Amino acid sequence: MNAKIFTELLIKGDFKAVHSILDVMNVVDIALLLEELNEKELAIAFRLIPKDKAADVFSNMSNTMQTNLVEMFTEKELKEILDDLYMDDTVDLLEELPANLVTRILNAVDSSKRNSINLLLNYPEDSAGSIMTTEYVSLHQSMTVKEAMAHIKQVGIHKETIYTCYVLERRKLIGIVSAKDLMTMNDDTVISEIMETEIISATTHTDQEEVAQLFSKYGLLAIPILDTGGLMVGIVTVDDAMDVMVEEATEDITIMAAMNPSEKSYFETSVFSHAKNRIVWLLVLMLSASITGAIITRYEDAFSAIPLLVSFIPMLMDTGGNCGSQSSTLIIRGLALNEIRFRDIFKVIFKEFRIALIVSVVLAFANGLRIFLVYHDMKLAVVIGLSLIATVILSKLIGCVLPLAAKKVHLDPAIMAAPLITTLVDTCSIIIYFSIATQVFHLN
Amino acid sequence: MNAKIFTELLIKGDFKAVHSILDVMNVVDIALLLEELNEKELAIAFRLIPKDKAADVFSNMSNTMQTNLVEMFTEKELKEILDDLYMDDTVDLLEELPANLVTRILNAVDSSKRNSINLLLNYPEDSAGSIMTTEYVSLHQSMTVKEAMAHIKQVGIHKETIYTCYVLERRKLIGIVSAKDLMTMNDDTVISEIMETEIISATTHTDQEEVAQLFSKYGLLAIPILDTGGLMVGIVTVDDAMDVMVEEATEDITIMAAMNPSEKSYFETSVFSHAKNRIVWLLVLMLSASITGAIITRYEDAFSAIPLLVSFIPMLMDTGGNCGSQSSTLIIRGLALNEIRFRDIFKVIFKEFRIALIVSVVLAFANGLRIFLVYHDMKLAVVIGLSLIATVILSKLIGCVLPLAAKKVHLDPAIMAAPLITTLVDTCSIIIYFSIATQVFHLN
Repeated sequence: MNAKIFTELLIKGDFKAVHSILDVMNVVDIALLLEELNEKELAIAFRLIPKDKAADVFSNMSNTMQTNLVEMFTEKELKEILDDLYMDDTVDLLEELPANLVTRILNAVDSSKRNSINLLLNYPEDSAGSIMTTEYVSLHQSMTVKEAMAHIKQVGIHKETIYTCYVLERRKLIGIVSAKDLMTMNDDTVISEIMETEIISATTHTDQEEVAQLFSKYGLLAIPILDTGGLMVGIVTVDDAMDVMVEEATEDITIMAAMNPSEKSYFETSVFSHAKNRIVWLLVLMLSASITGAIITRYEDAFSAIPLLVSFIPMLMDTGGNCGSQSSTLIIRGLALNEIRFRDIFKVIFKEFRIALIVSVVLAFANGLRIFLVYHDMKLAVVIGLSLIATVILSKLIGCVLPLAAKKVHLDPAIMAAPLITTLVDTCSIIIYFSIATQVFHLN
Repeated sequence: MNAKIFTELLIKGDFKAVHSILDVMNVVDIALLLEELNEKELAIAFRLIPKDKAADVFSNMSNTMQTNLVEMFTEKELKEILDDLYMDDTVDLLEELPANLVTRILNAVDSSKRNSINLLLNYPEDSAGSIMTTEYVSLHQSMTVKEAMAHIKQVGIHKETIYTCYVLERRKLIGIVSAKDLMTMNDDTVISEIMETEIISATTHTDQEEVAQLFSKYGLLAIPILDTGGLMVGIVTVDDAMDVMVEEATEDITIMAAMNPSEKSYFETSVFSHAKNRIVWLLVLMLSASITGAIITRYEDAFSAIPLLVSFIPMLMDTGGNCGSQSSTLIIRGLALNEIRFRDIFKVIFKEFRIALIVSVVLAFANGLRIFLVYHDMKLAVVIGLSLIATVILSKLIGCVLPLAAKKVHLDPAIMAAPLITTLVDTCSIIIYFSIATQVFHLN
């Protein structure tokens, strides 16, 4: 749907057309369309959305638009939306709203829902508790399949998922039954006979990234969340896990480029916040690069005698930095995917050493040949070649060891990425280069 | 389960214990456990897995282990596993096996399955067709809910998902019914009344990354795949979409660190392949860094007169590189998530310009102050400060424009990441620096 045509119909007052467009559109697409409208248009358009879709559209909109809508809703409209909104979406909404609107919402919901909301709001950010929903289907082990199906028919419509049902005994989770089992088994089968008792679960305080990894590792649709006492309190569904995965990958990538991650998208983040997120690391890295500079001054005599030496500094620094960040990137990603563990450190070092050997010899040969052909200076070719080999090997080793070390001391391995590695490798490569040069050219 | 204890039980011949352990373990965990065994142990252990789990365990194992197993299976065992394996897992297996084993497998399956396999094997790699399965539940629009449920009870057990059912009319997809609807609606409701007709679908040739994005955008459990004639041929399920998302994020991160992506994990990739994946970009970047070096030689007189100038080269180069890669990283990620589009280019440039202004002035001030305090040289402080401001602004602009330009000409924006940006920014920062220095110090 074209936003311009839609707005024209809206302004023209052709509500019948608008309504029928909204009737056939997917809720996610409606949400994206409404993002393009101004406040006044939004107020009209939102009220033309078919009742059964309104809450779904609402939960797919951005926080700014949700706030606008809540401000403009009557008490009745607000109550209607909140009744249809799943618990996890309600909590997401409350986390972003200004205090006066939060109070308005808490007044509009009934007291049992208010208690659940307050509970969910208290879980730490990024924990399983903060993304779970309390709406799931619970069964009793003595039920037959037929009774279970009847129970689901009664309560299922208001649950976020009915495809995994939880068998509880005094709020303790004792088994899991999939809707597939219920739909394909005989009516008089008893739940306790078909329920799965090997249960993959998480607790309210499990990190959301770990929960998302359980989904992709085990191919699940929902994961039960237990409280610290082992009682079942909610579920996380696969769509939320996908959001977490995208979010966490973005966070890793941002940290790897030496920035503090932002929770908002590029355009939603203000210029000032962008600058703030970037400047700390730049200052730190600038300072450490200055150390490299200070080291260079120690070799003033060398490049005063042979000024050409200076011209190879960028090539050596860049190659070292690139080699180091190649290694660190693969290790950081491997750690994030649990393919590499700290105990593999010697296996990794040996592997990187052999890779570095092949890579460095090829690079040294290519560069040595170029230098020999351009400058006809065998000695210089040897100096650059040897410096390259030493730099590449050292930077690959630094690049693989640092992320593993960070993991060991419970730091985020992602900070050991290109920028930090580059700065460290710079210093090393400069020292190696000028040491070799002063030896070969007898400069001291 | 500890692999060592498990192997001991196996070697001791305590098959009863092994069998009961395998009976309670999750299929994914069993697969991980079996990976640690040698061929002989694997042969014994695999045959102790409960029959109803064997195919599931098999599909979760690595290609190397799958090949070992297929080689050791009797014809009967092979047939049993293949009968229980979903179509998409069978195709994944065939894509990795040596030719003689492929023939063996194609002989073991019946002719209708063989035809489906051959069809799926022909779809291009990374297309929706290559990851879809042909096993889904189809309904007729005139069925009642009760009839549909009876139909699912009959065919459902062999389908990868029954939670989304497809209403077909002469193989054309006309509607979608969720199992949730079937389970919560009255028995005599007719399918045509409850089916959803706004259908999110993809074609066999849609890129797998686009399909995965549809899942996270619309929060779906399965997506129907249509052939070029618009007829329904299969579905992609959410667990496969999650695998694709992880795979594609890894690919992006690898490319952003100047490597050719590998389909295998870090340890599965050989030393030689690792070296090959890394060396091409290193050579290219080394060559372009040499250009920076060549430019430096043009300013030989400047740093012969004031050797201290050389010591600021690493700081300027690194800061420029880091600033540029910060911007390019955010833009590349924004493009991947569809949050930024090419038409936003002027908005992005203006935003980055303002960010660069704030960042560069802070950095220049911090550095100018440091230089003034250390060297008591106001002129030098001004040169470095001005160079920093110009470098930061230029590198942020290069960093945001290049990924957008790459997207426009249908290149992967991920290649415009830190390494390439750094090399480009180096050249610019060197020219800026020495131009300002020669002016301020009247060096020519």
